[in-house]
Amino acid sequence: MPLVVVGTVALDCVETPSEKRDNLLGGSAVYFAYAASYFTPVRLVSVVGEDWPNEHTQLLQSRNIDTAGLVVEPGAKSFYWRGKYHEDMNVRETVEVQLNVFGHFDPVLPEAFRRCPFLFLANGSTKIQHKVLDQCPGATLAVADTMDLWINTERDELLELLRRVGGLVLNDSEAMLLSGEKNVVRAGRRVLEMGPQFVVIKKGEHGAMFFSKHETYVLPAFPTADVVDPTGAGDSFAGGMMGYLAEQGNFEPKTLKEAMAYGMLVASFTVEDFSLDRLRKIERADLERRMEEYRQMLSF
Amino acid sequence: MPLVVVGTVALDCVETPSEKRDNLLGGSAVYFAYAASYFTPVRLVSVVGEDWPNEHTQLLQSRNIDTAGLVVEPGAKSFYWRGKYHEDMNVRETVEVQLNVFGHFDPVLPEAFRRCPFLFLANGSTKIQHKVLDQCPGATLAVADTMDLWINTERDELLELLRRVGGLVLNDSEAMLLSGEKNVVRAGRRVLEMGPQFVVIKKGEHGAMFFSKHETYVLPAFPTADVVDPTGAGDSFAGGMMGYLAEQGNFEPKTLKEAMAYGMLVASFTVEDFSLDRLRKIERADLERRMEEYRQMLSF
Repeated sequence: MPLVVVGTVALDCVETPSEKRDNLLGGSAVYFAYAASYFTPVRLVSVVGEDWPNEHTQLLQSRNIDTAGLVVEPGAKSFYWRGKYHEDMNVRETVEVQLNVFGHFDPVLPEAFRRCPFLFLANGSTKIQHKVLDQCPGATLAVADTMDLWINTERDELLELLRRVGGLVLNDSEAMLLSGEKNVVRAGRRVLEMGPQFVVIKKGEHGAMFFSKHETYVLPAFPTADVVDPTGAGDSFAGGMMGYLAEQGNFEPKTLKEAMAYGMLVASFTVEDFSLDRLRKIERADLERRMEEYRQMLSF
Repeated sequence: MPLVVVGTVALDCVETPSEKRDNLLGGSAVYFAYAASYFTPVRLVSVVGEDWPNEHTQLLQSRNIDTAGLVVEPGAKSFYWRGKYHEDMNVRETVEVQLNVFGHFDPVLPEAFRRCPFLFLANGSTKIQHKVLDQCPGATLAVADTMDLWINTERDELLELLRRVGGLVLNDSEAMLLSGEKNVVRAGRRVLEMGPQFVVIKKGEHGAMFFSKHETYVLPAFPTADVVDPTGAGDSFAGGMMGYLAEQGNFEPKTLKEAMAYGMLVASFTVEDFSLDRLRKIERADLERRMEEYRQMLSF
């Protein structure tokens, strides 16, 4: 089944301890869409400026990603993000953000996108996330991401959103901020009580935790020695997860756990190079091979 | 098969965000021995002062822990450690350490202990660890723990030790310090090249990684909502792991992975109360029940 994602499409500048790269294809919706495209057709909703290289759009289209919802705004510049990683690559500093076209992003979904059964609201203003949900009243499963900024500034809107979505994806510190709990298990359970049917807490290099009414579990990240650029790992994880759910057409407990695992594996490839450079070199079969290793690793 | 552990036996003072407890039974060898005692007979080598409450020794003896190697030094005081946990219970501060009897600890193993096939050198001076190894030339498997202090001050002795032991257990920051690598997978592999047949990197609440010539894997910690006091989790993990290996009488790859899992589960109980208070209330059957949940959690 097709999957809609609404989020940022960006030009990134990334500095790691060993290298600096500018004008990289990035943004939450880009990583998400590419990751999901291994599993299902994706429909992307976002906005870019007239500086946007057409080859980036072509790359996405080559992956069965429908860009009919990608608006090109004349006379404006694309979203720009600059980040720097420390020696410990788990520590990242945002050096610069230029919202540009995203300062007034007000997504209008193409008619055909509105009947899409699976929907992902990538990290962004909660108010905008509500507006997107309003346009997709019949979605089978809507999942949202969020971050500390919205937890702090749009808390009421976020609590309302949690009563409207099926799932929430956020990282551990955000779950603690939202719930007021210091223990990540308690935090997840508390967020679950706020409304969604499931909550996924991302723990970066340590994997992710899953919470539903009946289940609490954790899956480790796939261990990789070749972390070149962690940018987009979280969005790739969500993309792999949602892509698999959309492919399977359900979100039963069994499917959800498999989806978590696929998310983890796509993310483990993403970090092995800058931007989408590693993902561009792999196919579904590479994911299946790593899945085999991953299952083996977790069985005893 | 029996298992010898050499390490600290201590009186602890622990402060958590919600409670402060003094004169707790603690120390690396105590947590290790108790955890291992679910699986195999344990022989403890350590030293205490004349302030040591005999009931603590009796508790250990009641668990099939042979205390013939526990020396009581007249006119001296026991090792004392005081620690404080922050709101984020993963952050711990050592407030006070009184070495007391451990300032001149020079373990002499009872004759019967020297022929023990399984040996654990809990965290302590590398020089002392060498002396213990000297007394057990026929050990089937000797595993050592270490810490930043010894990595910094006894590096040469530690490198020599790594050529003498079968396994090393240490935490992630220590592995990075020892190897000079910033990526934990690379760190583990580099430490492995230093000599031991396997390396286990403890990641606290995130679980542990295993490295051998043929395998690299990670297992997550068992998620628990009830973290009361994390003290002793790492030593309990090592105790559960080594106890199971000693019980099985081998350290084949399959046994090692099961041992890692048992270590994780004993540790998940340890943190649910102060000192040994939670472990005192469980039996092997409780570990097996949690193992069932753990296997379920990791299968998909």
